[in-house]
Amino acid sequence: MVRRKKSLPRPVGDEAATVADLRRAVQAFVDERDWRQFHTPKNLAMSLAIEAAELMEHFQWLDVAESVARGRDPSCRDQIAEEIADVCCYLLSLVNALELDLSQAVRAKLVKNACKYPADEFRGKSGQEE
Amino acid sequence: MVRRKKSLPRPVGDEAATVADLRRAVQAFVDERDWRQFHTPKNLAMSLAIEAAELMEHFQWLDVAESVARGRDPSCRDQIAEEIADVCCYLLSLVNALELDLSQAVRAKLVKNACKYPADEFRGKSGQEE
Amino acid sequence: MVRRKKSLPRPVGDEAATVADLRRAVQAFVDERDWRQFHTPKNLAMSLAIEAAELMEHFQWLDVAESVARGRDPSCRDQIAEEIADVCCYLLSLVNALELDLSQAVRAKLVKNACKYPADEFRGKSGQEE
Amino acid sequence: MVRRKKSLPRPVGDEAATVADLRRAVQAFVDERDWRQFHTPKNLAMSLAIEAAELMEHFQWLDVAESVARGRDPSCRDQIAEEIADVCCYLLSLVNALELDLSQAVRAKLVKNACKYPADEFRGKSGQEE
Repeated sequence: MVRRKKSLPRPVGDEAATVADLRRAVQAFVDERDWRQFHTPKNLAMSLAIEAAELMEHFQWLDVAESVARGRDPSCRDQIAEEIADVCCYLLSLVNALELDLSQAVRAKLVKNACKYPADEFRGKSGQEE
Repeated sequence: MVRRKKSLPRPVGDEAATVADLRRAVQAFVDERDWRQFHTPKNLAMSLAIEAAELMEHFQWLDVAESVARGRDPSCRDQIAEEIADVCCYLLSLVNALELDLSQAVRAKLVKNACKYPADEFRGKSGQEE
Repeated sequence: MVRRKKSLPRPVGDEAATVADLRRAVQAFVDERDWRQFHTPKNLAMSLAIEAAELMEHFQWLDVAESVARGRDPSCRDQIAEEIADVCCYLLSLVNALELDLSQAVRAKLVKNACKYPADEFRGKSGQEE
Repeated sequence: MVRRKKSLPRPVGDEAATVADLRRAVQAFVDERDWRQFHTPKNLAMSLAIEAAELMEHFQWLDVAESVARGRDPSCRDQIAEEIADVCCYLLSLVNALELDLSQAVRAKLVKNACKYPADEFRGKSGQEE
């Protein structure tokens, strides 16, 4: 009988993968390298910011509209997806390290933001209008 | 018969929530405000970096070890969870805008990183040793 | 006889102020608070990134062209100038902590970049063209 | 008679170089490449954040104390100085684009911060104590 190695993420997409599935895949990667010792909140927040900056780099000199075209360009999408994955891995490492529930945190923030930005008042407005 | 409003995230945690569930919750919030027009890759990458910086702020002057204690402090956890949720909302908005599959991107990156950082070679090493 | 307090920067603008003048003003502020202990390279690099993000926030949802108008808006310029000053203070604190010469570092980088981006080849090109 | 080319920064260090000297050196570099068109506040703030993140990368996994040692390591100082120069070049490009006086902005911010953080109250305290 072959047992699936725990560290392998299940080959599923966003419709089937739970957040916990992804969290476990990232945690397994970290534990196989004994990297939990480096995964302090300070280091992980820093790493998240570093990866977010690498993602920004893809759109650094583009106009906002050009960045939409860049996001559709097949020759760029893979690299962009990789940077996004890097951000996500550190985000999941951080919730792993802090033992937070990400889905509940997101849900709670959406409820809070719905109060802060009532749909009727902010429809079509970024909040940065003159 | 009461129908659940589509825009409400299901009240579930990371074990049950799929990535697609969270993506839909964030997309509904954005669409209710007609904010898709602002959600270009350039703006969202910038927003992600801004929120990552706000998260860093919680650990700005702390030693790495102190940041662990801060992460456990009940009076700080809620605020930290909120910043993490902000990062996550922009990350999900970005994969929504780019129509990428986040789970597959993460899985692909873990496979790539497993080649780049073989477990036996990098065990216990951050890669920043002298 | 009144002696000028060393910690006060001279009331001069960019034409007269040397980089060393600004460095000393920032160092005096730090020393009056005994903050040198927090001014490690890791913390200062983090602080620089945090302030850069706060600066970005002023242009977060604007189109690139709108950001030019925002930069000219008298009601916004003071706030923007403050964020820029924050970035500069941490930058100067970092060169103070590392005992580097900022002017020489800038000059050396311009020489290096002039080789990397020959004027004739890169004229009018951001390097992010398709 | 040989005239010094205006675009060359004077070979002086922080004690002699004025902020305006550095601003002109950076502006000349930009103008020789006709890059003023890309130097909008939004793009420059983004670039500043990107370079700040590259600077952070040098200290990403280090303890705060280790980052001090790294800053003294001769084999690392040149690279760190380069990242600092990159941050400085974008900072100066931004004040050039916005036509702000950096020295005055820094001086004004130090005065404001001196009120916000009275020396007697904040001596030896980062403001992030428990």
